Amino acid sequence: MKFVRFGPAGAEKPGIIDAEGRLRDLSEEMDDLSGIVLTHLDDFSPEGMPVVGGNPRLGVPVAGVGKFIGIGLNYSDHAAEARMDIPAEPIVFMKATSSLSGPHDPIRLPRGSVKTDWEVELGVVIGKPAKYVSAEEALDHVAGYMVVNDVSERAFQIERGGQWTKGKSCDSFGPCGPWLVTPDEAGEITALDLSLSVNGSRMQQGSAANMIFSVARIISYLSQMMTLHPGDIIATGTPAGVGMGMVPPRFLKPGDVVELSISGLGTQRQEVVSD
Amino acid sequence: MKFVRFGPAGAEKPGIIDAEGRLRDLSEEMDDLSGIVLTHLDDFSPEGMPVVGGNPRLGVPVAGVGKFIGIGLNYSDHAAEARMDIPAEPIVFMKATSSLSGPHDPIRLPRGSVKTDWEVELGVVIGKPAKYVSAEEALDHVAGYMVVNDVSERAFQIERGGQWTKGKSCDSFGPCGPWLVTPDEAGEITALDLSLSVNGSRMQQGSAANMIFSVARIISYLSQMMTLHPGDIIATGTPAGVGMGMVPPRFLKPGDVVELSISGLGTQRQEVVSD
Repeated sequence: MKFVRFGPAGAEKPGIIDAEGRLRDLSEEMDDLSGIVLTHLDDFSPEGMPVVGGNPRLGVPVAGVGKFIGIGLNYSDHAAEARMDIPAEPIVFMKATSSLSGPHDPIRLPRGSVKTDWEVELGVVIGKPAKYVSAEEALDHVAGYMVVNDVSERAFQIERGGQWTKGKSCDSFGPCGPWLVTPDEAGEITALDLSLSVNGSRMQQGSAANMIFSVARIISYLSQMMTLHPGDIIATGTPAGVGMGMVPPRFLKPGDVVELSISGLGTQRQEVVSD
Repeated sequence: MKFVRFGPAGAEKPGIIDAEGRLRDLSEEMDDLSGIVLTHLDDFSPEGMPVVGGNPRLGVPVAGVGKFIGIGLNYSDHAAEARMDIPAEPIVFMKATSSLSGPHDPIRLPRGSVKTDWEVELGVVIGKPAKYVSAEEALDHVAGYMVVNDVSERAFQIERGGQWTKGKSCDSFGPCGPWLVTPDEAGEITALDLSLSVNGSRMQQGSAANMIFSVARIISYLSQMMTLHPGDIIATGTPAGVGMGMVPPRFLKPGDVVELSISGLGTQRQEVVSD
């Protein structure tokens, strides 16, 4: 199943995509795609739900997000272009939950930004609480998968002292969706292909098979340190092809259009604007 | 005014402390100490509110926390003991909101932890949204102040690769409270004294006057990068005297008792247990 949240920012309703690709309204069936609902998504189906007309805005397809966790340098080709070593353990950082935005909302360049970059990533949404879980049982705690653009201001991230979170947390730097796709429908994670283009030119192309740390290992690893709660999002790292890695580096400017896809998980499209 | 949240974890009610130090129930007056309520705390008073008997557990005195932000190395004496340079700009990291706990809840040592450390800090709670605010106007966005123990697992933080968030985000690593104290009652920030003891021995003693970056500058700085929302918490750094800085280093073990205070903001007491 593919779940969505649709409507104006801050007032989204839950919905589901039917076999014909039509959006149907689930708001009579659940409060929102959050909390306990994420533990039993299998109980919902599009059958009999009202079809939503028009072309409403889509929001982040999960609500009540407590943590928005990023994994750094999780593809060896991206580690190489960033001139960083392959990590011995997952690199963990946080994006502010206030950076979350819909899959087609604009990317707003923060004032003073000159190095805003793109990163297509497989996003994992936690369904059931996870604490001290093994890699073998980790995937039982997943509600679904989605596309994430881990937008990153490289000067804020790397040149302004200390920790990455500054460059990862700007408003609009976390487009998610269009859909939250349940594990049965997403299929084998290692078969997922990721791609991203800017103004129609392909920049990133990779396979989730090339992750250094698998989704199961990442969940197990994080759960040794903190409880993962329903609605928590993990962005699992990006393959090569970010702007920072180009010679010369290339960064986003107002008017650019970023499009990114993961096979089976849908496509995002963002226009870049000044904030 | 001093606001609290009281009751079992996850089911706290809002309350207020009256002039005689008694806890009074505010739950008929507001849903919770969160969101829009934080913009008009002046509208509430203990007068006529029911007195709460017994000695209920206290929770984090703010709800709906979207971001739990830490500022690193913000006291020069602590930077020296950590053998780090004085930062040119605020060092910003995130603690998971799932690390939040009540002021007297136990500190749970994560499995495998051998370097769990203490850090008494002045916590700032945002009241009104802040984006691109100047230092001059920054304090208008503060709902109040509270004591925070920025509990930190140093091996997770520093020796496990990458970013600090791993060692800052463990469950129970964010005791806050006992009270959320409004700015008029907290008084001059630079007059606040911080102290922390372990098993009755004084470990930390400092003054908020010695912050490298003031509360106003920190809020202004963060707001250039991200919107600060009502309920966001900023832990503004710790003075010297953490366990990591001792010769030899000293870390927490089960049975230890940590007590920490800030003048006018109250006292926390945590027992250390195994998770």
